[in-house]
Amino acid sequence: MNAPAWNLRDRQRRERLARAAEVAGVKGRHVATAAIVPLLEAVLQPGDRVCLEGNNQKQADFLAQSLTQVDPQRVRDLHMVQSVLALPEHLDVFESGIAKRLDFSFSGPQGARLAKLVSSGGIEIGAIHTYLELFARYFVDLMPKVALVAAHAADAQGNLYTGPNTEDTPAIVEATAFSGGIVIAQVNEIVDVLPRIDIPADWVDFVVKAPRPNLVEPLFTRDPAQISEIQVLMAMMAIKGIYAEYGVQRLNHGIGFDTAAIELLLPTYAESLGLKGKICKHWALNPHPALIPAIEAGWVESIHSFGSELGMEDYIRARSDIFFTGADGSLRSNRAFCQAAGHYACDLFIGSTLQIDLQGNSSTATLGRITGFGGAPNMGADARGRRHASPAWLKAGEEARAGRQGAAGTPRGQKLVVQMVETFREHMQPAFVESLDAWTLQQQAGMALPPIMIYGEDVSHILTEEGIANLLLCRSDEEREQAIRGVAGYTAVGLARDARMVENLRDRGVIRRPADLGIDPREATRNLLAARSMRDLVRASGGLYSPPKRFRNW
Amino acid sequence: MNAPAWNLRDRQRRERLARAAEVAGVKGRHVATAAIVPLLEAVLQPGDRVCLEGNNQKQADFLAQSLTQVDPQRVRDLHMVQSVLALPEHLDVFESGIAKRLDFSFSGPQGARLAKLVSSGGIEIGAIHTYLELFARYFVDLMPKVALVAAHAADAQGNLYTGPNTEDTPAIVEATAFSGGIVIAQVNEIVDVLPRIDIPADWVDFVVKAPRPNLVEPLFTRDPAQISEIQVLMAMMAIKGIYAEYGVQRLNHGIGFDTAAIELLLPTYAESLGLKGKICKHWALNPHPALIPAIEAGWVESIHSFGSELGMEDYIRARSDIFFTGADGSLRSNRAFCQAAGHYACDLFIGSTLQIDLQGNSSTATLGRITGFGGAPNMGADARGRRHASPAWLKAGEEARAGRQGAAGTPRGQKLVVQMVETFREHMQPAFVESLDAWTLQQQAGMALPPIMIYGEDVSHILTEEGIANLLLCRSDEEREQAIRGVAGYTAVGLARDARMVENLRDRGVIRRPADLGIDPREATRNLLAARSMRDLVRASGGLYSPPKRFRNW
Repeated sequence: MNAPAWNLRDRQRRERLARAAEVAGVKGRHVATAAIVPLLEAVLQPGDRVCLEGNNQKQADFLAQSLTQVDPQRVRDLHMVQSVLALPEHLDVFESGIAKRLDFSFSGPQGARLAKLVSSGGIEIGAIHTYLELFARYFVDLMPKVALVAAHAADAQGNLYTGPNTEDTPAIVEATAFSGGIVIAQVNEIVDVLPRIDIPADWVDFVVKAPRPNLVEPLFTRDPAQISEIQVLMAMMAIKGIYAEYGVQRLNHGIGFDTAAIELLLPTYAESLGLKGKICKHWALNPHPALIPAIEAGWVESIHSFGSELGMEDYIRARSDIFFTGADGSLRSNRAFCQAAGHYACDLFIGSTLQIDLQGNSSTATLGRITGFGGAPNMGADARGRRHASPAWLKAGEEARAGRQGAAGTPRGQKLVVQMVETFREHMQPAFVESLDAWTLQQQAGMALPPIMIYGEDVSHILTEEGIANLLLCRSDEEREQAIRGVAGYTAVGLARDARMVENLRDRGVIRRPADLGIDPREATRNLLAARSMRDLVRASGGLYSPPKRFRNW
Repeated sequence: MNAPAWNLRDRQRRERLARAAEVAGVKGRHVATAAIVPLLEAVLQPGDRVCLEGNNQKQADFLAQSLTQVDPQRVRDLHMVQSVLALPEHLDVFESGIAKRLDFSFSGPQGARLAKLVSSGGIEIGAIHTYLELFARYFVDLMPKVALVAAHAADAQGNLYTGPNTEDTPAIVEATAFSGGIVIAQVNEIVDVLPRIDIPADWVDFVVKAPRPNLVEPLFTRDPAQISEIQVLMAMMAIKGIYAEYGVQRLNHGIGFDTAAIELLLPTYAESLGLKGKICKHWALNPHPALIPAIEAGWVESIHSFGSELGMEDYIRARSDIFFTGADGSLRSNRAFCQAAGHYACDLFIGSTLQIDLQGNSSTATLGRITGFGGAPNMGADARGRRHASPAWLKAGEEARAGRQGAAGTPRGQKLVVQMVETFREHMQPAFVESLDAWTLQQQAGMALPPIMIYGEDVSHILTEEGIANLLLCRSDEEREQAIRGVAGYTAVGLARDARMVENLRDRGVIRRPADLGIDPREATRNLLAARSMRDLVRASGGLYSPPKRFRNW
């Protein structure tokens, strides 16, 4: 019997590197722009697990385009493991047979096309993950054989500067480089001296200069001009009824206008309530422009970021006490650590959703689209491994456990997970439903479970323009259902409430209306916003914030 | 009014670096061994938050000793944020007033002294954390101002090679370097060319060669000679009653002889059950020597590690298909990613504890000791943000939810969290108790909550020599209590069982005895162990495993 081979991975890696070295235009770690397709063909093998860096914001777009151009006879049936499907090319590779299987986290803009590809059998979905979960699997059973990543710059040795939009890159590169895989980076420029080294050249096999700078989406820019007075009202309720009530110091905000309104009320409404220094000091958050007025007013002590935001570079540099920056002054983001921070070091997550059911389960999955969840499940889950206490966490835990017996009564803190939705979203679609579309989608796509983003068991509060339902205080399925119906407004779910039970829940403080919180809806005007336009944000930043063109509407 | 200062952090950093540059023996990043105490005095300021790298295994011991030697008039009231208190010096700094406050994860050998210091008022404890939770706070509200870390080697530029025992270093250095802090590394040697660069010099301010190589503890080495036949029996039950039952492919094992016995039964007992390829393929695990026979028999596909294990270096290098290694062949460990993997990418965590109560809550906290939890809360918690399915996770979730209504009945997977204990531990202390010592300890130390390691709500199975209690199937507090009593043997808790209810639970499969699993306790002999001594392990490794001297007993 032959001795078993224990270093196959290393041998195969050397074989791939040897083939790559034969490609014209490859010199050591440096690959000529025109040589990228032959390089990919030399390095990739059928069935390889490939991480094509698709982030929430930064895209390895040149490598994505190049991958679509390889010969499907030579490179086929790849298993793509990537957090975000943002570009058409991310799906093109499935249509051409270059790729076959997909494990991912989020597919926002490509969700409808993805659903079609799945139903036509053109793509096998392994699973939909939350970001940190996918990164975790990179180290257990989804190690990438080849990683195609994006960095801002490289030097002659192949060291990388990932710059403000570091995002997923460290997690991807570490998992690949130390499991015998091959790392290929596209960069915007090759320079003599990098502002700082983010990824050592030892971890990188090939560097290619892309013909255009990599795409970065300004996903977290919200024009204050579009914030409605309903959103102002809801933000007032969030601040007075939740943030102040629990003394929330460490938090994460989801994307959207609802939470942008909260950010813009801190230096005005929250200041008038005397809350400065008592809430919202530490953030796990991208550099939201809407937070500029609160930062300027001295509300914010620290922000750690998943990624960056276009136009915020100079502002971040000038406010380095607040942001994580390198000695060079530019932002250091890191999605893996920021997700860990969101999970374990924040007391509150507040986000929005498309549908909520009578159990409090919520989902952004709708028929005909497979969009995934991004970071919400990780941050919108009770972190049951957490052991350090804070007043907010203890109070939420006490509310959830008061009067309970046995294992469910053992004292424990709990995370505040708030779903903030208007009862009707655009096109008058109700946010409250008897049954989530997720159930139908599960059938359609043959999933093991319905694609629920945040489970009702983990939600602590539902906030609408009608009021706040505190689910921590509910003690039966019936109470929970009526608490939800009680803030569901004029939706069918809301109209079917048991009015007497809802009033009873209101007496107990399970449901709180604006009036119960001492909030007069007539005061909820746009005048309360610390900035009412993009221009106001730029002004608040002292001219340091420089919004992308599409947001320059003055 | 003066403009507020927004770059104070950077200015203070420069001031500290300027003071350091004045110290004799400091040249750029390089600090002469004898200059370390003056350097610390130049860099540290009263009240600073300091991370002194105390890992589970690797210790920055030279820097720890040096810190005890600074002038307490100049450097005092430090706030230490470090995962492990392993060395006497870690507490000495509190006795001398150099440090005052502590946030940590684990204090195993120093637990008794720590409790004394707390009760005498010599130390303020912020909180006890699980590792990943502490790392998360490094990015939110516990950013270290100064980090004192250990690496294997540095080069002239100050790049670091952390080598096999990378452990916490990347998380500590990233949090410090990008929040305006100062990173000081002790290294065993300065070399011209590092085997690989693990941490770029840009992230490191000072490097000092320690007079002795840093301490590394072989914490995960278990001599098979000490495994008892009771442990063999329990391991057989774990394999047949849990691993095979759920088809557990991805898992983490705690430290100890109980789980070492499982590892050593894979190529023998589990093989005889036809389980090869069906269980135990992917691991989040330090390189346990007890896993060598299973690796050699082809059971294991991959292992990602929190840290390394002394003596396993050559074996790891020769089995690079299995372990995460660099292009240089040495192990790359990373506690942050491995904890994420244990949380999100493993279907089972199995560990041991000192006490379990009638709700299934367990703790290693005992009176007069404050030991902390290490990684157990993170891995022994249901990961409620997880969204990808596996057969093991789905089956556990179905069992837990069958017949439930409302939010608790919404389908969802669940992690298998197994507590494996003999009913009596050493000195005939019962493992099952009516009330955990944690409750008294909470009073003594003024903690907000009792220091529970794993909550009963998160435990799926309790395994003793008497049988397996499947808590997922319990539907009331009373059933849970009797299921626990039903495997608690001759402890007072076990003797107080309701015999009829226990038999009923057995009929329903909630309790399973060895006979119910088709296991004959007479077959549970040491002969089933694939290695029965350290020498056997070395032999199984083909001589590649080289145990530390204290384990060389042949």
